[in-house]
Amino acid sequence: MNSIDINCDLGESFGQFIMGNDGAIFPYISSCNIACGFHGGDPLHMENTIEKALHFKVQIGAHPSYPDLAGFGRRKIILSDEELKASIKYQISALMGMVKSQGGELKYVKAHGALYNSIAHNEKEAKTFLLAVKELNPDLAILGLAGSPFQEIAQNSGFRFIKEGFLDRRYLEDGSLMPRKEQGAVLESVDDSLNQFTAIAQKREVQTANGKRIPMNVDSLCIHGDNPLAEKILKGIRHLDLPIKVKCAAL
Amino acid sequence: MNSIDINCDLGESFGQFIMGNDGAIFPYISSCNIACGFHGGDPLHMENTIEKALHFKVQIGAHPSYPDLAGFGRRKIILSDEELKASIKYQISALMGMVKSQGGELKYVKAHGALYNSIAHNEKEAKTFLLAVKELNPDLAILGLAGSPFQEIAQNSGFRFIKEGFLDRRYLEDGSLMPRKEQGAVLESVDDSLNQFTAIAQKREVQTANGKRIPMNVDSLCIHGDNPLAEKILKGIRHLDLPIKVKCAAL
Amino acid sequence: MNSIDINCDLGESFGQFIMGNDGAIFPYISSCNIACGFHGGDPLHMENTIEKALHFKVQIGAHPSYPDLAGFGRRKIILSDEELKASIKYQISALMGMVKSQGGELKYVKAHGALYNSIAHNEKEAKTFLLAVKELNPDLAILGLAGSPFQEIAQNSGFRFIKEGFLDRRYLEDGSLMPRKEQGAVLESVDDSLNQFTAIAQKREVQTANGKRIPMNVDSLCIHGDNPLAEKILKGIRHLDLPIKVKCAAL
Amino acid sequence: MNSIDINCDLGESFGQFIMGNDGAIFPYISSCNIACGFHGGDPLHMENTIEKALHFKVQIGAHPSYPDLAGFGRRKIILSDEELKASIKYQISALMGMVKSQGGELKYVKAHGALYNSIAHNEKEAKTFLLAVKELNPDLAILGLAGSPFQEIAQNSGFRFIKEGFLDRRYLEDGSLMPRKEQGAVLESVDDSLNQFTAIAQKREVQTANGKRIPMNVDSLCIHGDNPLAEKILKGIRHLDLPIKVKCAAL
Repeated sequence: MNSIDINCDLGESFGQFIMGNDGAIFPYISSCNIACGFHGGDPLHMENTIEKALHFKVQIGAHPSYPDLAGFGRRKIILSDEELKASIKYQISALMGMVKSQGGELKYVKAHGALYNSIAHNEKEAKTFLLAVKELNPDLAILGLAGSPFQEIAQNSGFRFIKEGFLDRRYLEDGSLMPRKEQGAVLESVDDSLNQFTAIAQKREVQTANGKRIPMNVDSLCIHGDNPLAEKILKGIRHLDLPIKVKCAAL
Repeated sequence: MNSIDINCDLGESFGQFIMGNDGAIFPYISSCNIACGFHGGDPLHMENTIEKALHFKVQIGAHPSYPDLAGFGRRKIILSDEELKASIKYQISALMGMVKSQGGELKYVKAHGALYNSIAHNEKEAKTFLLAVKELNPDLAILGLAGSPFQEIAQNSGFRFIKEGFLDRRYLEDGSLMPRKEQGAVLESVDDSLNQFTAIAQKREVQTANGKRIPMNVDSLCIHGDNPLAEKILKGIRHLDLPIKVKCAAL
Repeated sequence: MNSIDINCDLGESFGQFIMGNDGAIFPYISSCNIACGFHGGDPLHMENTIEKALHFKVQIGAHPSYPDLAGFGRRKIILSDEELKASIKYQISALMGMVKSQGGELKYVKAHGALYNSIAHNEKEAKTFLLAVKELNPDLAILGLAGSPFQEIAQNSGFRFIKEGFLDRRYLEDGSLMPRKEQGAVLESVDDSLNQFTAIAQKREVQTANGKRIPMNVDSLCIHGDNPLAEKILKGIRHLDLPIKVKCAAL
Repeated sequence: MNSIDINCDLGESFGQFIMGNDGAIFPYISSCNIACGFHGGDPLHMENTIEKALHFKVQIGAHPSYPDLAGFGRRKIILSDEELKASIKYQISALMGMVKSQGGELKYVKAHGALYNSIAHNEKEAKTFLLAVKELNPDLAILGLAGSPFQEIAQNSGFRFIKEGFLDRRYLEDGSLMPRKEQGAVLESVDDSLNQFTAIAQKREVQTANGKRIPMNVDSLCIHGDNPLAEKILKGIRHLDLPIKVKCAAL
């Protein structure tokens, strides 16, 4: 681990409903997960976000979700295997063609919200998700929870797997994320996130909700675009003195 | 005109809401316009419709619409140029990738409903629509109203244009279609549609609502999948004795 | 049990997407559960269905659902208590005012699809559902699964409970319905439904999927409007010779 | 005009998509127009907004819209008369029952966005809108553009009409609002809005985009909740020295 990627969920605004502050974040990240219309994002916001990503030379990933605009993709929706596979293909495909039309290339796929958490631990759903990606383009990388069963399934299916950790979310002892509805799921201060970043970057470990330290070996760290502290955290990272290169557009 | 193409709007069902009778129609057509999720269609219905089209060796076109599930794309929605372009790209792109993933190839684009009628006569909107297609793939053909201003714009933009006529809709003297909300917009009987087919195929003309005959030089004839007479009309065509080859999957 | 009510889910069409054959069913039922826009139904279909119900003197109930048009309300959606309560209030309230504006009166509430099944056995969700109804109008009756835990909760909460059975669905030994995705969930023939009707009306019992007979003491029997056999079953009931009055609009 | 009402569009958030800053605005207004789910708002945001309105003793109006979440109700949607009437009834009815369930009372109706502008000048659509309100409750007041043809139609139909002006929007010489897509449609500074307020309150006139002064005789002034200056403008109003009582919750 000589360098680390910073990824962020972007392009999640819907019509007049603005989510996050994409413009402020783009200079400080190296990968963006662009919403595909099912939890946020609409064609115009997607188009404009692709344009910005190409301008900032930020790597583009697809960020498909359960079909759930009202719940921002954070609710589990039980789909049949066929429905899930088709829904994932539809979303990735829409973004992939739009990226290509602007001269870019889609590099990876990261599931959003409840789908991310569900496939991290549900083998059947994980395989359906991966099959959808494979049918579209088996060379796409998969970005997912570091150390999860999903990592192994994806790697066994022949995918390049980008191991992801979280800058601004609190971990449980088993390596999963504290659910969003619980108090403390999102780290409260800029310093907390910077400390978590430092621990991961220097020691490849993270401190969990109950004070334990668990190994955290990651390729990419996620920061949430709707976190109001995101911009400050990202600026703070650049002033840390670390033996690792933090990839970002502005560097 | 030694042969004629028959096209139909298919894949318009949405979840449990079934539209048309796609299975009965596939054997009798040579091109299908597959809904892309904005007026009908959902990812699974799209996926299954692509599969059937490939099975029947029916040519596949994208059938993008204004975003209007509640109005089935038959209402004019005023979008900015940027919104329209992005919406069209999103829809075509989603279908295009799904077709490719099943080993097929998207061949053409036909606008749906109110969008079809609007671009037929509105130059600015027509150009935005064509720009969206061009950015994705300039080799896609455009299927549109024969003899409309849109035909000329598309051809001047370098697109191959498939001139379309209608089997089951009544024409007005200026070559446009009688609006759906007017009495008689859809031909009432199987014989009326077969007569219209014969007139177009043999004499390259059609009789309008007010009894005039106008020239109708077309490459493809459309039949509506939600027309309850569609199956009977399509079977009837195969028993007509015409000096022209009617393309269809079953022949 | 000297008479029995027949209820049906109606008004479930959405825009151009037609669901069921409401016009054919109205003369043969005594209660209709009108969709409220979340799984089907839209304001105009609701308005027109209310008008028909008043014309046929069919009692009107509200038929709220999880917010799930794409899944026709047949998928479990996990909402917070607050979201569920507000969603139920919104739907019932919309219908209630529209019924009143046409000179009618809303009489009862029946949950739809996955929500119906979920509250039948989930106490916390059942109580949230009932609280929503109570806040709007505690005099509304509740129509729900006969013999379910929900029946007891509703009655203990002071509601009049209309015990419901099913004409065209197969029962399991514990009195619940065979899930829709299983083979045989919907009775296959008109005769099967008529036999189930007769068993319930004469012997207050029903034969389950595994051949057992279980007691079935009901006030109202449901037939599904999207069952293609619905009209035939309903006409068949009128020719049965039973010692019980079957309520319906046409009698 | 001894006192003036201040109204604001509130409750327009949708799920995780937050619109405006309702909490900061409630203390400074006397009437709130609550979204009904068609351009923004969802059942839970509606429920919570009603609760706040009752807490602050702010008068509640319904704020129905064209069905257009993606366009925030700011796009013209062409509905048939029947569709429009049913859509308006559905929205008002949903809110009305929810307000009543919390012990409040719905007082008036104000159309949103493109519907507001359309009925202000389109007699047929205006009459359909008013008929929808009348069928629900003819005692509801109508809040609409002061001096518009709609005012006369509503008054001739027997409604109490609340004449509305705008604090933060620029007027054209004919008394209509500068369209939102034009530069300068929303006043740029707090002082501009305060000056417009003073001119209306003291002289019953407003200065238009081209520098003319036109009479502006209003009962209620609207400030937009999604205007980032809203809170500052509202606080500024309280420090103006005017011979008129400005109604607001905090006074």
